[in-house]
Amino acid sequence: MDYRSLITSPTLLIDEKVCRANIQKMAEKAELHQLELIPHWKTAQSKKIGEWAREYGIRKITTSSIRQAAYLSNTGWDLIHIAFPFNIREIPRLNELARNQAISVQIVNPFTIQKLAEQVSTPIGFMIEIDAGYGRTGVHMSDFGKIDEILKIGKTSKNLSFLGFYIHPGHTYYKPDKELIYHETRQALAMLKTKYESEYPNLVTRIGDTPGCSVATDFGDIDQMGPGNFVFYDLMQADLGSCKKSDIAVALAVPIVDIVPERKEILVHGGGVHLAKDHLIEKDGKKNFGEIVFLKKDGWEIPEHISFVKSISQEHGLIQASDELLNQVQVGDLLGILPIHSCMTADAMGVYLSLSGEWIDHAEEKKFKV
Amino acid sequence: MDYRSLITSPTLLIDEKVCRANIQKMAEKAELHQLELIPHWKTAQSKKIGEWAREYGIRKITTSSIRQAAYLSNTGWDLIHIAFPFNIREIPRLNELARNQAISVQIVNPFTIQKLAEQVSTPIGFMIEIDAGYGRTGVHMSDFGKIDEILKIGKTSKNLSFLGFYIHPGHTYYKPDKELIYHETRQALAMLKTKYESEYPNLVTRIGDTPGCSVATDFGDIDQMGPGNFVFYDLMQADLGSCKKSDIAVALAVPIVDIVPERKEILVHGGGVHLAKDHLIEKDGKKNFGEIVFLKKDGWEIPEHISFVKSISQEHGLIQASDELLNQVQVGDLLGILPIHSCMTADAMGVYLSLSGEWIDHAEEKKFKV
Repeated sequence: MDYRSLITSPTLLIDEKVCRANIQKMAEKAELHQLELIPHWKTAQSKKIGEWAREYGIRKITTSSIRQAAYLSNTGWDLIHIAFPFNIREIPRLNELARNQAISVQIVNPFTIQKLAEQVSTPIGFMIEIDAGYGRTGVHMSDFGKIDEILKIGKTSKNLSFLGFYIHPGHTYYKPDKELIYHETRQALAMLKTKYESEYPNLVTRIGDTPGCSVATDFGDIDQMGPGNFVFYDLMQADLGSCKKSDIAVALAVPIVDIVPERKEILVHGGGVHLAKDHLIEKDGKKNFGEIVFLKKDGWEIPEHISFVKSISQEHGLIQASDELLNQVQVGDLLGILPIHSCMTADAMGVYLSLSGEWIDHAEEKKFKV
Repeated sequence: MDYRSLITSPTLLIDEKVCRANIQKMAEKAELHQLELIPHWKTAQSKKIGEWAREYGIRKITTSSIRQAAYLSNTGWDLIHIAFPFNIREIPRLNELARNQAISVQIVNPFTIQKLAEQVSTPIGFMIEIDAGYGRTGVHMSDFGKIDEILKIGKTSKNLSFLGFYIHPGHTYYKPDKELIYHETRQALAMLKTKYESEYPNLVTRIGDTPGCSVATDFGDIDQMGPGNFVFYDLMQADLGSCKKSDIAVALAVPIVDIVPERKEILVHGGGVHLAKDHLIEKDGKKNFGEIVFLKKDGWEIPEHISFVKSISQEHGLIQASDELLNQVQVGDLLGILPIHSCMTADAMGVYLSLSGEWIDHAEEKKFKV
């Protein structure tokens, strides 16, 4: 069965072999550094891909919303951590969810833990998110007053148990010196562990970001790693040096609807609602919304000469095509597009098609899209 | 019933009064200029909002995919036009759809109409899309050879009937002089009508873009207007001068999960998977992913001082907050965000909540998101 025969409209392809190799490689790296790998499932958001991950010894995962956690609950995970500053409007849903699935949440302020202490009716773990310089979210690493207050309130409820400290050093996406960022992050986590482990001897520390986890060589005494994007990787990660383009495990299959050879342009059905609108900036200042691959019977092939999506609207993608590409396509053919940001593309598409023609689930199921 | 009591996680609100006023105003403008208003439903993508539109005399609509057309079929439309260069892989689905719903498609090359002529089994209309300078898609307005070839092939099938010429002058989104663009577009359509109406006496010409349709005062002898975004408008349209901020009919309700007064920042659950990642650039070079409104019992209120989403990731939105805003919120409260690009936000959210607490359908239904 040729998977291409199933495709009439934009469809997100997954190469299971590449995906499994990414998981295996990170699992081996985690083992080498004596870390527990607890991947962030905001990227894959899939029960089936979760089954693959468990084959490599992964037992716990992370999500970025209670909705994703609900989708993945009771599918075999020892613990699902919701790594987003907890939203107190969702306490009733949390109570319901935690009745049948071990859950932990993320805390960044005393107000939230106070509400949880008052209203949580089932045992829940919590991690404190620490800001070690990224500046998006978390308690500043030296704000011991706030950390102590959170811990003190946590102790007032028998249903709340403190698990440890979580850092997402997202500045590895923007700054070149990832080793330096990791040095600072390691130091912050080591300092916190030293300070609090007499009172919480089982506390763990976790770091979670794909660029850092992919390239760092020194994790110090950090206990857990929580990257997400590595399961699929994408062109942004290739650009950051986290992976090679051949490590990218997903590609959007799109039908060609027009070809304009005199402008070297190919128009495809595949736009912002499919790929999302993340982009890279090429050296000449042009935006790149994704790069073209050839779809073959057993997978995709990266062409010698780059062709890329140079502009995008709601449903249209306009490709700047190489001669190599122009010479071998006609209207109605399919092309593949490697995404810039695979988490966003997978969320937009809501279902995957494997190269063996099997549909693979995603939390945002939109089967009618295909 | 207070709609706010239904909201626990990111939820797209619609103000029916504002939405109806936008539709009514455009319908009146169309009538004044003796144009038929055939709105582009890629923005609303809703059966219910379609019912509202029909109360203002609208009988036909446009979609940007066969999927949207399938969703809206048999819900009361005299004709659904799919204004996207037709994708020949979808001919079987088109045949199925056209059995019970009047459908027309968009053609930009002879290859596609040839495949349709060979395989279409039900009567279908077609429009030829003309590129009058935007450069994204369409037959160049002076490429009569290609237009003639398309028409000639169209005549070979009794199931295909030529309806007219369609122009989406999308450069009104980028260039200040919309009247000049409309002047050129009018001239292109008038020229084509003159050239082809002896052979096709019923042919129509259509123009479709919200910035132009909102501000233009001279439509010449154009027959139809097809704007889409005007149903909701958004901050991009307000920035372009198409509308006032008070004309924006949708706002994303988001829960506050953290407040950092010393940095004047508010963190909300509401990110790229909810708002999409379109942004405006403020005068100081900062990105603006959406502006904050206060949610009141009967609707939203635009604050005196602007607060805006300054950075966004998959699920996080980080707000640069005014003192006015900081002084009146706490963790757990809801805020509203006016979107930059409402079409993309509506597609990402997949369902609306009215101010009377009623859920309103969208083609991308994702009820579990709320």
